[in-house]
Amino acid sequence: MRVPFSKMYNEFLRVLLKAGFVEERAALCAQLFTESSLDGVHSHGLNRFPEFIRHIKKGYVDIHASPEKVETFGSLERWDGNLGPGNLNAHFSMGRAIQIANKTGVGCVALRNTNHWMRGGTYGWQAADANCIAICFTNTEPNLPPWGGIDCRIGNNPFVIAVPRTNGHIVLDMAMSQFSYGKMESYMRNREALPVYGGFDYKGNLTCSPDEIIKSRRLLPIGYWKGSGLAIMLDLLTSLLSKGRSTYMVGELKEEYGVSQVFICFNGIHLLGSSFLDNVIEEIIDFIHGTTPSGENERVYYPGERTLVTRKLNREKGIPVDPLIWQKVLEM
Amino acid sequence: MRVPFSKMYNEFLRVLLKAGFVEERAALCAQLFTESSLDGVHSHGLNRFPEFIRHIKKGYVDIHASPEKVETFGSLERWDGNLGPGNLNAHFSMGRAIQIANKTGVGCVALRNTNHWMRGGTYGWQAADANCIAICFTNTEPNLPPWGGIDCRIGNNPFVIAVPRTNGHIVLDMAMSQFSYGKMESYMRNREALPVYGGFDYKGNLTCSPDEIIKSRRLLPIGYWKGSGLAIMLDLLTSLLSKGRSTYMVGELKEEYGVSQVFICFNGIHLLGSSFLDNVIEEIIDFIHGTTPSGENERVYYPGERTLVTRKLNREKGIPVDPLIWQKVLEM
Repeated sequence: MRVPFSKMYNEFLRVLLKAGFVEERAALCAQLFTESSLDGVHSHGLNRFPEFIRHIKKGYVDIHASPEKVETFGSLERWDGNLGPGNLNAHFSMGRAIQIANKTGVGCVALRNTNHWMRGGTYGWQAADANCIAICFTNTEPNLPPWGGIDCRIGNNPFVIAVPRTNGHIVLDMAMSQFSYGKMESYMRNREALPVYGGFDYKGNLTCSPDEIIKSRRLLPIGYWKGSGLAIMLDLLTSLLSKGRSTYMVGELKEEYGVSQVFICFNGIHLLGSSFLDNVIEEIIDFIHGTTPSGENERVYYPGERTLVTRKLNREKGIPVDPLIWQKVLEM
Repeated sequence: MRVPFSKMYNEFLRVLLKAGFVEERAALCAQLFTESSLDGVHSHGLNRFPEFIRHIKKGYVDIHASPEKVETFGSLERWDGNLGPGNLNAHFSMGRAIQIANKTGVGCVALRNTNHWMRGGTYGWQAADANCIAICFTNTEPNLPPWGGIDCRIGNNPFVIAVPRTNGHIVLDMAMSQFSYGKMESYMRNREALPVYGGFDYKGNLTCSPDEIIKSRRLLPIGYWKGSGLAIMLDLLTSLLSKGRSTYMVGELKEEYGVSQVFICFNGIHLLGSSFLDNVIEEIIDFIHGTTPSGENERVYYPGERTLVTRKLNREKGIPVDPLIWQKVLEM
């Protein structure tokens, strides 16, 4: 089942207005949710929308709150998200990082006391649209065991890097676990094994079985000890730069809210205006695309390449939806 | 066989002076090499030293060259390394990023036309010693196949994040391949299998055999497609921000030289001076250390924790050396 972009957008808008959002904020929030589904990231688009509304009703998300500046150190600003909607807060913060970068070359906004930003890639595409290079990351509740241990004490801390490009931006959007719970559930529904090890079974053996990993909650960090270390560093950076909650502190709460994020932008106008630099990007991409494939149906993609294909397809044919979740939103 | 710090330092100093370095630069270069071995990173300390001297003799490294500022955009500066010694250039650049951060909150130095920085962690420890949070990364020659392909068209692009801490800094220093060639060779010498998959054999099967991987040159990026994507992004950032050589362009040269690097610093004085923030770090570390171990001899370490143990041990007992390589240096 597919739903046109405008139809999905209008439904989200309707529900958000009903929940009490002012019009302008409802419009942006609906747009960000719809764009995530449009780009194929259903887990943080339509499929997450009911949970987002539940968080509002629980009082974890204050729909009227906006970020407030707490401290300024030159190109580095510390903001308090006041528990506003995570995607609006993050969109604002990346916008502010872009503004700073346009003035001073580099801009960094450290945001505390905010909420789940939904799809991290959103803010990468946003920065690239503004002709900026960007790095951003968030911490999360403890949902991943660190390397060497079995209980969840680090976050999967999504990490985003974006580079603007005339022929379609290059955007990496990845969490620190090899697979997300959403991805594993989708393999489970299709009764398929994961293509590579995704975690441990309850006996402590590496496994490709999504059922076993979901039961044990022992997801694998990317690169084993390396992703575990990177997750620890991202948590330190978000919580220290923003003076906000660490993964540990978020874990002390009843549910996941009030997280910390960092948005770093590099001014693209001076840096990337020349055709010389566009040529460098194309040269890199051509070189990568020219790699001998590892199998008959394999090829090498650059980060974000398949997103652009999905976006185009879904614009034309409508956005695929889970009928049950779609029905749920229609009834909201 | 172990050698005291001062003895190793003096040998490096002697060889560098003989090679024509001026005294001050020879001293810093010798110190950086010795510190890498002291911290247990032999591959980029003693074991790399003869190769460093070879690169000088080949003319890839200009021992008298220093970085020159090319362009300034506020907190972002672009420097040309003039093919100077990679560790001196990188040390200078992180120093400059610290200076900028101390003035404007964030500092970014993009360095082109430089050389192998040896141990990346060096510049993380340097920034943390200056009470700064830092992120830095370098590109390399093509030495890793991107996900979906078999020939080496991306770099293993080392990536470093550092956080200053009163009780010992937290420093992550990782390349994008699951194992380095040096690490695999050491497993091979000990006739041991890798603890996890490190790459593909020539038939395209994932394997823990270091011999097979070294033969096929099909090393595995961390997290499969994720590390592959991250390596591509780091190459884009280094070459675009510095307007320097990409991994593709470095691959066009006869050997690996003239690479691109980025050094980002966040001012630590305002951010981390308070005991509140030191407490946050200890709380995060205590939480991670409290994870139930995954096995009898397992425990969770934070990034850099074991480096501090090694550093202390080697200060006291001397630095372990490969006798053949040590002899080679003595005869230089």
